[in-house]
Amino acid sequence: MSLLSRLLILADRVAAPGTVHAHCDLPCGVYDPAQARIEAQSVKACMEKFQGSDDEVFKQRSVFIKEERADLVKHHLWVLWTDYFKPEHLAKVPELHDLFWRATKKAGEAKKTNDPAVGQQLLDLCDRVAAAFAATKS
Amino acid sequence: MSLLSRLLILADRVAAPGTVHAHCDLPCGVYDPAQARIEAQSVKACMEKFQGSDDEVFKQRSVFIKEERADLVKHHLWVLWTDYFKPEHLAKVPELHDLFWRATKKAGEAKKTNDPAVGQQLLDLCDRVAAAFAATKS
Amino acid sequence: MSLLSRLLILADRVAAPGTVHAHCDLPCGVYDPAQARIEAQSVKACMEKFQGSDDEVFKQRSVFIKEERADLVKHHLWVLWTDYFKPEHLAKVPELHDLFWRATKKAGEAKKTNDPAVGQQLLDLCDRVAAAFAATKS
Amino acid sequence: MSLLSRLLILADRVAAPGTVHAHCDLPCGVYDPAQARIEAQSVKACMEKFQGSDDEVFKQRSVFIKEERADLVKHHLWVLWTDYFKPEHLAKVPELHDLFWRATKKAGEAKKTNDPAVGQQLLDLCDRVAAAFAATKS
Amino acid sequence: MSLLSRLLILADRVAAPGTVHAHCDLPCGVYDPAQARIEAQSVKACMEKFQGSDDEVFKQRSVFIKEERADLVKHHLWVLWTDYFKPEHLAKVPELHDLFWRATKKAGEAKKTNDPAVGQQLLDLCDRVAAAFAATKS
Amino acid sequence: MSLLSRLLILADRVAAPGTVHAHCDLPCGVYDPAQARIEAQSVKACMEKFQGSDDEVFKQRSVFIKEERADLVKHHLWVLWTDYFKPEHLAKVPELHDLFWRATKKAGEAKKTNDPAVGQQLLDLCDRVAAAFAATKS
Repeated sequence: MSLLSRLLILADRVAAPGTVHAHCDLPCGVYDPAQARIEAQSVKACMEKFQGSDDEVFKQRSVFIKEERADLVKHHLWVLWTDYFKPEHLAKVPELHDLFWRATKKAGEAKKTNDPAVGQQLLDLCDRVAAAFAATKS
Repeated sequence: MSLLSRLLILADRVAAPGTVHAHCDLPCGVYDPAQARIEAQSVKACMEKFQGSDDEVFKQRSVFIKEERADLVKHHLWVLWTDYFKPEHLAKVPELHDLFWRATKKAGEAKKTNDPAVGQQLLDLCDRVAAAFAATKS
Repeated sequence: MSLLSRLLILADRVAAPGTVHAHCDLPCGVYDPAQARIEAQSVKACMEKFQGSDDEVFKQRSVFIKEERADLVKHHLWVLWTDYFKPEHLAKVPELHDLFWRATKKAGEAKKTNDPAVGQQLLDLCDRVAAAFAATKS
Repeated sequence: MSLLSRLLILADRVAAPGTVHAHCDLPCGVYDPAQARIEAQSVKACMEKFQGSDDEVFKQRSVFIKEERADLVKHHLWVLWTDYFKPEHLAKVPELHDLFWRATKKAGEAKKTNDPAVGQQLLDLCDRVAAAFAATKS
Repeated sequence: MSLLSRLLILADRVAAPGTVHAHCDLPCGVYDPAQARIEAQSVKACMEKFQGSDDEVFKQRSVFIKEERADLVKHHLWVLWTDYFKPEHLAKVPELHDLFWRATKKAGEAKKTNDPAVGQQLLDLCDRVAAAFAATKS
Repeated sequence: MSLLSRLLILADRVAAPGTVHAHCDLPCGVYDPAQARIEAQSVKACMEKFQGSDDEVFKQRSVFIKEERADLVKHHLWVLWTDYFKPEHLAKVPELHDLFWRATKKAGEAKKTNDPAVGQQLLDLCDRVAAAFAATKS
């Protein structure tokens, strides 16, 4: 995540600690890119644990737990893309569709590898999603 | 669904009854737009049942069953968008991202109304997705 | 699937492309044996991918993804058996209970092996279910 | 299934009497009809709570919670039918298929009504399932 | 489980065979510690199956099926802790929080090992939970 | 949330933006109280939407969507309590068990009412959980 993105997010948190955003099609109005990012952190951590272990059973567990977590990353990202973002946001985030396509595809790729570099790429894409979210939130 | 789309899909079924397509990130290679369409049919049917009933409990059940089914429509569409479609398909289906965005947003809209016309619009979008699928399947 | 079954299903699709059938206990009236078959295709594809790979992690993933897909086969078959089929259908499909028992047991067996022949047997049973469905749909 | 396949499976069963009951397709060997019955108790209790209340929101909640619980009844019953019961049990429980068909259909019926009498019928059928289980457990 | 606990539970069953208890936040009034115990039996059985097998694929399946079952143990225990137990029960079961904390942590530990002794410890804790339940049920 | 708690959390975010925490029993090492809080925001928002609407169907949807979100609050809190917190943390957070018991019970209470004040109480308890988390994270 770029320093600018971090600052934007931080500024937003400091300035409006009580604002909420929506993720349930009521819509309740609560959306937060942190949901996808937390699962992406788990995906990367599973990869690192896999690489650092010699225990076959532990490594197998890390693979299927990573599979579940990567599914959650995809789910949370899809919800943001379809439910939070509106046509009027495309002017501010022209790459919106491509960004979400690449981020969700990256989560799929993360299932197929145990290379933490892919986990980091997934985190970076989640951070770009967070920046797009911050840029469009009114 | 246009007659052409129907014929394309039918022709495909007749010509290659054994081919399979993928939907599980193995990837197993099995994808089928019928999964989203079946749930969309259920969404529209729930709306019609809602409109045709005077029983309050039945109507409430139709609302929350529709909610679940619309979620499944979104899920199956998201999987096709992220997992089946590849960058090289964009040449054949330039509207790919916009089509899926509108289709999944329509599924969200279908949760908020009991107007069968919205259910039909969702089915029509699922048919366009099916046509895009048929156009890109090798 | 016998040629006759295929033709019956095909004929049905051509003749009544808009009819829907039910799968949600509303009942919405939408049932389709394609749901179980698509997952069964995935089960068989996972077995073939398993057999064709030397990558231990990939093989493990194919095993647990197959497990999930076989669960979905069972679920969709159970729903058809309990929710779609009615006592009056037994006259047309006397083997109904035995067919579904064997088909769902076969899905369980498919979890325990990576032999694609078992995957094919599961597909064949799904095709017989589809034929029973086609024979009873009014 | 070919005759050869049947014989192979039968031979396997004869040779390995370590029968199992399990409910997870490992199979782990753990089955218990109490799982379905507890959910059926919940279904009936939701009906009674519905009847005893004048609060519209509470009544709506009882309806959709009952829907979920009835789904669990069906799931647990289906697992027993497909996974625990074996062909050799049919001699002891000739009505096996019909019993499970009626019990799971009753769970579906319980979604559509708030009449506690239907909840009681569901419990009675769960008790008959439990008796069939007890009669076949070695 | 201590002899006393067993007797308490048995006495309870004999004296009040029809009483029900609640687990769905309606609340429907149906709670039963058997739900957690059945899954814990499955966890231990998976460990034993793992130890008794030389088949790599079977052992992998036992590991991830155990993971799912241990999750269910945790879920059912958490529901009892939060939903069934009330502040007034603390007088009768002073160790309530610690018991549930250790039982749910043990279920987590059971995911990380295939030692049946840990499965047995989990069962023993489920039995202590059952005794606490029996001691507080009115 | 007290000003101090807010500052502690904020300070933590500024000082260690890359640290991660665990929530999957691998354990992957990623835990974050934000998961429960986001769902709790949704619970409160559903209550407010319910109060502000005259549309019966919308109000019903807000009730069952709230039910699901409150379930997620409970789940995320239970995971923190059982998986993140360790015996050595009790010295720093003596009220740990009571805090989580009250917070998860409050989530259950939030299902039974549409009073936003209860939603706010749930948020306040989530904030106290976040403060306990911040106080124990090394």
